[in-house]
Amino acid sequence: MIFYGHGGDIYDPALGGKVLDFSANINPLGLPKGAKKALLEGVQAFERYPDPYCRRLTAVLAKHLGVEQDFILFGNGAADLLYRLAQLLRPATALLLAPGFCDYARSLESVGCKIKYHYLAEAKDLRLERDILPKINTGTKIVYLCNPNNPTGQLVDRTLLTEILGRCEAKGAYLLLDECFMDLVDPKEAYSLKDELAAHPRLLILKAFTKTYAMAGLRLGYLLCSDAALMDRLRQQAQAWSVSGPAQAAGAAALEEQGYLEKTHALLAGERSYMRSRLARMGLKVYGSAANYVFFRLPVPFDLKAGLLKRGILVRSCADYPGLDQRYYRVAVKKRKDGQRLLKAIEDCLQDAIAAIVDRRTGG
Amino acid sequence: MIFYGHGGDIYDPALGGKVLDFSANINPLGLPKGAKKALLEGVQAFERYPDPYCRRLTAVLAKHLGVEQDFILFGNGAADLLYRLAQLLRPATALLLAPGFCDYARSLESVGCKIKYHYLAEAKDLRLERDILPKINTGTKIVYLCNPNNPTGQLVDRTLLTEILGRCEAKGAYLLLDECFMDLVDPKEAYSLKDELAAHPRLLILKAFTKTYAMAGLRLGYLLCSDAALMDRLRQQAQAWSVSGPAQAAGAAALEEQGYLEKTHALLAGERSYMRSRLARMGLKVYGSAANYVFFRLPVPFDLKAGLLKRGILVRSCADYPGLDQRYYRVAVKKRKDGQRLLKAIEDCLQDAIAAIVDRRTGG
Repeated sequence: MIFYGHGGDIYDPALGGKVLDFSANINPLGLPKGAKKALLEGVQAFERYPDPYCRRLTAVLAKHLGVEQDFILFGNGAADLLYRLAQLLRPATALLLAPGFCDYARSLESVGCKIKYHYLAEAKDLRLERDILPKINTGTKIVYLCNPNNPTGQLVDRTLLTEILGRCEAKGAYLLLDECFMDLVDPKEAYSLKDELAAHPRLLILKAFTKTYAMAGLRLGYLLCSDAALMDRLRQQAQAWSVSGPAQAAGAAALEEQGYLEKTHALLAGERSYMRSRLARMGLKVYGSAANYVFFRLPVPFDLKAGLLKRGILVRSCADYPGLDQRYYRVAVKKRKDGQRLLKAIEDCLQDAIAAIVDRRTGG
Repeated sequence: MIFYGHGGDIYDPALGGKVLDFSANINPLGLPKGAKKALLEGVQAFERYPDPYCRRLTAVLAKHLGVEQDFILFGNGAADLLYRLAQLLRPATALLLAPGFCDYARSLESVGCKIKYHYLAEAKDLRLERDILPKINTGTKIVYLCNPNNPTGQLVDRTLLTEILGRCEAKGAYLLLDECFMDLVDPKEAYSLKDELAAHPRLLILKAFTKTYAMAGLRLGYLLCSDAALMDRLRQQAQAWSVSGPAQAAGAAALEEQGYLEKTHALLAGERSYMRSRLARMGLKVYGSAANYVFFRLPVPFDLKAGLLKRGILVRSCADYPGLDQRYYRVAVKKRKDGQRLLKAIEDCLQDAIAAIVDRRTGG
């Protein structure tokens, strides 16, 4: 069996059923009401083939984003588009951040790409800084960035991003900018490169409905790019029906929902700062965390994931990210009651771990 | 805009809204009740990531088919698996039937494969016969067959298929056998090669829930193969979450539905023979049509699709299939009332066409 290792695998029989899942970063508000209604009322329509051109969804999204319809390519989740892109470009080398989302590397490795990592410095709180620029060279075919970064939640501002994009263009490289969590950032205008698309055909922005609209199970992501020839080749490289009926129906309804993002921002702002301050008070180092997850480092390395699982809670250990180790964890921001349960459990695990260390030291 | 040309694009604004769709071959019974229930009750669960291993669905299908769980790979519809296979194998050449389903060629062309066609003979009613055997040679990397064939609906028996499989093995070629419509054949045991999987690792059987269970919009297909290394490479070549939550939930429920396939066979047998005899009586040549569609040739070439569209009915013109022309059409088998509406409309179109020909000849 292939080991995927992502968060959110609550179906693992080893978990023994019910678990409170903090490992996947889903909007705690759940599906927008209109999206749920579209799913319930659309069941009969899902018997038929989905619209291969996603006509209605494309029109709604183009209006929502203020971009040309031709700049949009939908896929079976953002991950689908990562694999399609890797398989189309088949780059010999790529520059990735460490730590960063594992599907960049996985999709590139599936076509034999050699990956170079730019390691984010702990001394800089794992923030992306200008020292990435000289690493983008003539041999670099594509650079992958995520803003805010997953798993750290650190943001990169537009000034640095624009410099990176300029360097990519000068060296003939594409820039794949993953903004899957950008809609959860407030205000996003200071960070998103969406408005640079038309002027920069080498810029590819990846986005998803997954996290923002709590639709991970429906699989809906999209790529934005103004290079029409590249977009056509990406289209031709996959089946006509990669976006399901439920994804198209719920996606369009989600975009038309009024007030959902505002409510999301309000909830996230409160719960994120609550989680951050409580975790810091426990002696954990908390990083950027600009989106709907909080990333932290334990003061001592121990298996927090196993300890929490015993208490019925699933979190994302980041030990398998290049550049990180067993001290790093990522947890979703959820509603207050769930957050409190997590905080209490982390506190208990910390006490157990410290007691064990003291025990070992005193030979007890 | 890329032109896909498949049946089922009822979203085309040129159609002006409501249309009776005979162009896509969907089970006229509609979604099994249990599958519909699973969709309605599962909405909340679709907020979460789907099971990357499709654990429950795999277990249910393995039991249903009587094959090993390891032989099964699910995809985002059968078409997804065609593209994944082409992109993994990247064959230099492939042997396909003409006419045959267009996504074989399209997926292969996306990786630069050179396609050789074996043209089915009109004199043999477009039936596959032994003359394909010498065309499978040392240079052949993969052969694509569909049983019953789409669009003709002609069946190939196990004896010839076993011979073809043996020849593929001797020449080092894979055999991709598309059995997407096989569950609609009664009895399928005389035709399916499912039981040959374990002994023949070069045999790949493609199947889908699309047509059999009226789930085209949900996207659920699977590949069966006993070559564990090949299956692992296919898994690694795509994202973890290619099968959505709705597809997994509805798929498992569909397989557990009692009596659905029996009811389907009874309905299809009656309506298919009704359609066939009525079409033949109009002077059309009707072919195999063993599944849930009827394939026929007009006595004279004219644009039947356009004529039917004017009457609010969409059918699949097969003029774009290699080896066919404007005389060939494929229509789905639906319930009696819909079928009668189609037959009446075809009759009207035929009369118009014949009148036009007579007019031209008499210079009137």
